[in-house]
Amino acid sequence: MPSDKTIGRLSLYRSLLSRILRAGDSHIFSHELAALAGNTSSQVRRDLMAIGSNGTPTRGYDIRSLIQSIGECLDAAGGERVALVGVGNLGGAILGFFAGRRPKLSVVAGFDNDRDKAGRVLYGVRCYAMEDLPRVIDQQGIRVAVITVPASEAQDVADRLIRAGVRGILNFAPIRLRTPAGIYVEDVDVTMSLEKVAFFARQSLTHKG
Amino acid sequence: MPSDKTIGRLSLYRSLLSRILRAGDSHIFSHELAALAGNTSSQVRRDLMAIGSNGTPTRGYDIRSLIQSIGECLDAAGGERVALVGVGNLGGAILGFFAGRRPKLSVVAGFDNDRDKAGRVLYGVRCYAMEDLPRVIDQQGIRVAVITVPASEAQDVADRLIRAGVRGILNFAPIRLRTPAGIYVEDVDVTMSLEKVAFFARQSLTHKG
Repeated sequence: MPSDKTIGRLSLYRSLLSRILRAGDSHIFSHELAALAGNTSSQVRRDLMAIGSNGTPTRGYDIRSLIQSIGECLDAAGGERVALVGVGNLGGAILGFFAGRRPKLSVVAGFDNDRDKAGRVLYGVRCYAMEDLPRVIDQQGIRVAVITVPASEAQDVADRLIRAGVRGILNFAPIRLRTPAGIYVEDVDVTMSLEKVAFFARQSLTHKG
Repeated sequence: MPSDKTIGRLSLYRSLLSRILRAGDSHIFSHELAALAGNTSSQVRRDLMAIGSNGTPTRGYDIRSLIQSIGECLDAAGGERVALVGVGNLGGAILGFFAGRRPKLSVVAGFDNDRDKAGRVLYGVRCYAMEDLPRVIDQQGIRVAVITVPASEAQDVADRLIRAGVRGILNFAPIRLRTPAGIYVEDVDVTMSLEKVAFFARQSLTHKG
């Protein structure tokens, strides 16, 4: 199985390639893609060879077919249906951000413990009460979920999602979830990231004198 | 200098400790903090010893003084002023998310190439036109910036920020920025993260079935 990092790079390549294609280019050399992705051309060639794509020395890679090959690796054939729990400020922004961005990866259900949100369509997504979570996850075949609830609720939400059949979680709550083996969790901790940037920005000034 | 990972863990500890303090506890043992942070008690003790904090065998760590010690390590004494470039959907969500969350880390200026936003206060932050960026960054002593513009504009924005004096960047655009040595960049790529979760959630099912 490809590593976490390989999958991350393929996802980045696709984002970059889609943008280049929209800008009007049809071919790209590995060193050009490497410059945009912040790695080396040999790394790019290895990653793309692993999904069966080879460039030519004269024209490089065909961007359209490369995007398709990456899609065959990354995307579920019939598309992946995603749930989001916690339709507040951050959850709403995530919904707005993903809307239409990846046709094969769409958020189809939102859950919130604010009962006023149940039954409404918010940010383009149908919202449900928390007690409907097991039924909706099961009926819609949802295996991927995004958690945007406060830290104090995140573990309970993760437990419920996993019991309902979810196998992968993108977690925005500033807590590390305890999950059984076989469940993939990716943490996005925006506060931590900004605190790291602030810390090292300051060190860089101090060290300069 | 502490590593990237150590700083990340200290930031996470502080988030967790603040929540526990609000819940009414005054002391915590290293193994309890480790369980919440998803690491080991010896790791927690090492990290906290590095900032001069030691627990007692009977009561563990005093949460209040631990939060203060972490703050002395992570926070700039006078607070850190942050700029955000790209006051769209994602930028607005980030502004809403950070508002009041960390008193020592506040977004004080937003920039956007939509001239209608200049001069307005959006999501609690004063917005400026892009051409005012060098002046505002300099006058306000801003060293940290968040980039929430589309990928096609992110490199140009980063170049401008660095020329204006910014030393650390939190980058939400799906592109790897080219920056001079001494500039700290942290990437948050939400699409990549969700694609990874979806990929590994599917593998976990395949391997079970």
